[in-house]
Amino acid sequence: MSLVETAIQMRVVYQGELLTIRKDSVSLPDASKATREYVVHPGACVVIPQIRPGLYVFERQFRYPLRQVFIEFPAGKLDKQESALVCAQRELKEETGYSAENWLHLGVMHNCIGYSNEKIEIFLASDLRPGNQALDSGEFLELFEMSLDEAEDAVRKGLLTDAKTITCLFWLRMIEGRHEAKIGSLADQIGR
Amino acid sequence: MSLVETAIQMRVVYQGELLTIRKDSVSLPDASKATREYVVHPGACVVIPQIRPGLYVFERQFRYPLRQVFIEFPAGKLDKQESALVCAQRELKEETGYSAENWLHLGVMHNCIGYSNEKIEIFLASDLRPGNQALDSGEFLELFEMSLDEAEDAVRKGLLTDAKTITCLFWLRMIEGRHEAKIGSLADQIGR
Repeated sequence: MSLVETAIQMRVVYQGELLTIRKDSVSLPDASKATREYVVHPGACVVIPQIRPGLYVFERQFRYPLRQVFIEFPAGKLDKQESALVCAQRELKEETGYSAENWLHLGVMHNCIGYSNEKIEIFLASDLRPGNQALDSGEFLELFEMSLDEAEDAVRKGLLTDAKTITCLFWLRMIEGRHEAKIGSLADQIGR
Repeated sequence: MSLVETAIQMRVVYQGELLTIRKDSVSLPDASKATREYVVHPGACVVIPQIRPGLYVFERQFRYPLRQVFIEFPAGKLDKQESALVCAQRELKEETGYSAENWLHLGVMHNCIGYSNEKIEIFLASDLRPGNQALDSGEFLELFEMSLDEAEDAVRKGLLTDAKTITCLFWLRMIEGRHEAKIGSLADQIGR
């Protein structure tokens, strides 16, 4: 079965200061027609700032749509013509003051596939050097450090609910997992 | 430092078929003013359908905003006056045909805190009984099963990038983690 939907007509129905909304007519797999409304997004990056393996820099930031302070990794939207890596380096510096010697691209996530075309590139930044923050006008946040175990505990307790940050934690566990696998095989050898 | 932003004026600037957009004037922590535009969302649920511990039901679904087929857990928006659990039971049945004997609420995630107030309730559904799908008009999807290790491998390879689904995988690893901890302590006892 083909799952693909094809655009028949596309138009911008709302152009705001931050958000652009498109409403397209589409042809469905069974040839019937439907409407698809969604946010047109420039793309974004999220940065995992590693103090040392197992210890990371997090932010506390008020997010107005939910009227709530969230625990997050630094993140931001791509400027026009900006590459994901340059965006990641800029956002890390602006929001935390840190610059990083080593940058590793871990992967990509899509955080809102139902009604946005946002794509977030995930970077691990290590060998950090402290410096001065340069927050955007209207941007306020607090920095703090947590271990991966502390972050997992915060998820378990419902204190860390941001999906992009939890997705980063999953990536960190995957990277760490290689070490844990060794312990597993050792236990296998001795018959558990 | 207070991080809180306070609403001065709120208004709906776009009311579409699917999306409602609000544009509020807010007062920032330093008493300056700014504009916040965001999607007003009714809330959603995501269901992890467990065939048996370690084996889960996934969907392949075309998501028009990104013109791409995604691997996801079943999910959907709350109907008016609908509780999250009833929504989860309805979506599981409609999208997969399964009904579940056991429902466990794992937690909450926020997938798009920058420009949406969407909140997703996470449920683990087990003791599944197969039945008939009842897809919404215009909804097309394929079902398949993967182990948690296969899903992790799909994330690593960039084949599974949906943040809500990866957040669910993180929750599954946390639940599983208790067993792995035992193996860890065993390895500790024998001096690794």
